[in-house]
Amino acid sequence: MNVFVVGIGLIGGSMAKDIKRIDANAKIYGVDINDAHLEEAISLGVIDQKATYKDLELADMVIVSIPVDVMVVELPKILDAVTDNAIVLDAGSTKGLICKEVENHPKRRNFIACHPIAGTEFSGPSAAIENLFKGKTNIICEVEKTAFKLQERALDIFQKMGMRIRYMNADAHDKHIAYVSHLSHISSFMLGKTVIEKEKNERDIFDMAGSGFESTVRLAKSSPAMWTPIFKQNKTNVLETLEEYIQNLEAFKKMILEDNYQGIYDEMDSANKIKEILNGIPQNKN
Amino acid sequence: MNVFVVGIGLIGGSMAKDIKRIDANAKIYGVDINDAHLEEAISLGVIDQKATYKDLELADMVIVSIPVDVMVVELPKILDAVTDNAIVLDAGSTKGLICKEVENHPKRRNFIACHPIAGTEFSGPSAAIENLFKGKTNIICEVEKTAFKLQERALDIFQKMGMRIRYMNADAHDKHIAYVSHLSHISSFMLGKTVIEKEKNERDIFDMAGSGFESTVRLAKSSPAMWTPIFKQNKTNVLETLEEYIQNLEAFKKMILEDNYQGIYDEMDSANKIKEILNGIPQNKN
Repeated sequence: MNVFVVGIGLIGGSMAKDIKRIDANAKIYGVDINDAHLEEAISLGVIDQKATYKDLELADMVIVSIPVDVMVVELPKILDAVTDNAIVLDAGSTKGLICKEVENHPKRRNFIACHPIAGTEFSGPSAAIENLFKGKTNIICEVEKTAFKLQERALDIFQKMGMRIRYMNADAHDKHIAYVSHLSHISSFMLGKTVIEKEKNERDIFDMAGSGFESTVRLAKSSPAMWTPIFKQNKTNVLETLEEYIQNLEAFKKMILEDNYQGIYDEMDSANKIKEILNGIPQNKN
Repeated sequence: MNVFVVGIGLIGGSMAKDIKRIDANAKIYGVDINDAHLEEAISLGVIDQKATYKDLELADMVIVSIPVDVMVVELPKILDAVTDNAIVLDAGSTKGLICKEVENHPKRRNFIACHPIAGTEFSGPSAAIENLFKGKTNIICEVEKTAFKLQERALDIFQKMGMRIRYMNADAHDKHIAYVSHLSHISSFMLGKTVIEKEKNERDIFDMAGSGFESTVRLAKSSPAMWTPIFKQNKTNVLETLEEYIQNLEAFKKMILEDNYQGIYDEMDSANKIKEILNGIPQNKN
């Protein structure tokens, strides 16, 4: 099987590593605007060789893992270049605009819209790891628009990677993911900013910050190049979640200001419910 | 050495476990208003026997690890009950009011004000673990008010637990800790609340939430009984940090609303600086 990975970073690279393990005969071609990343991916054994869109006619499978603003521009070109027998899958954190952009593409049936909910805060080919997707959820949107035989090829690989599949329409995906992923990133980025701004003497943070702080600001290490277009494409949902979050923080602040400590206790007690919810989330071992 | 632990939970219990390992002759007495916790602590081998304040005259060392509102009431009583040769240490997450409450106590010299920056989101005797404090920072306030020989006894134990000591005045402690600990907890509690409120169908959260979300809301599992009095005692500093955090979130929201994506990129890029700061924080292996 000839597999092309467009965008050799954390997600594309990790998929490439899994596929090499699953299928010893798989040949992995890497496409990336950053030539240094391609060289690094070759030296790390993540890909077998460099390629360009001209080679896409050889592809049995194309994994597109690039920032979502580039995705909407590149995906139609990639579909133009593949044969009728190739399956093209994306890994974007938004689904609405991506699905809309290829809605009327003559090769729409060659595309399967995916969001594997997996990752770390690291990026680039060196961030690629095996088994990143094991036990993780892969959300597939508008599956009915993908040719049945080609769906099967993708689903077979996802199953062998250990992913759990969930089907959803693109609008529902974008609405829910704003709460459980996009908002967490903003909360973390702004927490990092607040503390950095105040504590100009980094030594003080270093010494006083514990693992709780670290856990809460971990996502503030994420790539701005990846996240800026996600917030842009999911603007409406992100603004809604952010507004609700700010209102909840304002209400909490008001309770402290008014010495309503029973209110604060009750708020935290009910947020504790997150324990049971989190117990169901697969752990990231990295 | 006779060690009394008042409040047999995560912190007190973990200290007890370390002390038993460090000093095979140490005898650990547990004092707790919750008799079930004492029984559990005995069965887990965290303490050797139950005790009351009447037994405190036997103490060489007293570790007080109780919610900070109870601390300000109980600490003077504990100091009343110990001999001139006992060292009493606390583990409260606030330091200002605690130090003020015992400022004029005749046994002030028997007290050392501490904040070991270590913990997990769990509580109770079963949360006690060995080596919780290894590599962690212990902030000691107003050390000059503690008798030199008694300081030594505490510092010797802290060193054997593997803690790094940092001295600070109580006001500076409360101001800095609001940023790197108290604010993280509010951010996490309110993030949990926002998502729980919106996603009444828990199944959707369960399936779509990844390790990033889990990391960001981990602290929302923390004990309301412990955290309510912390926010109360550190009200001024907490309100200040919370206001700054909300303003940063508002500014980020405004940038999204106005399609200022360069601004968003720059904000995230500068928050990425947290990477270098976090590299210095000892990992919690639990």
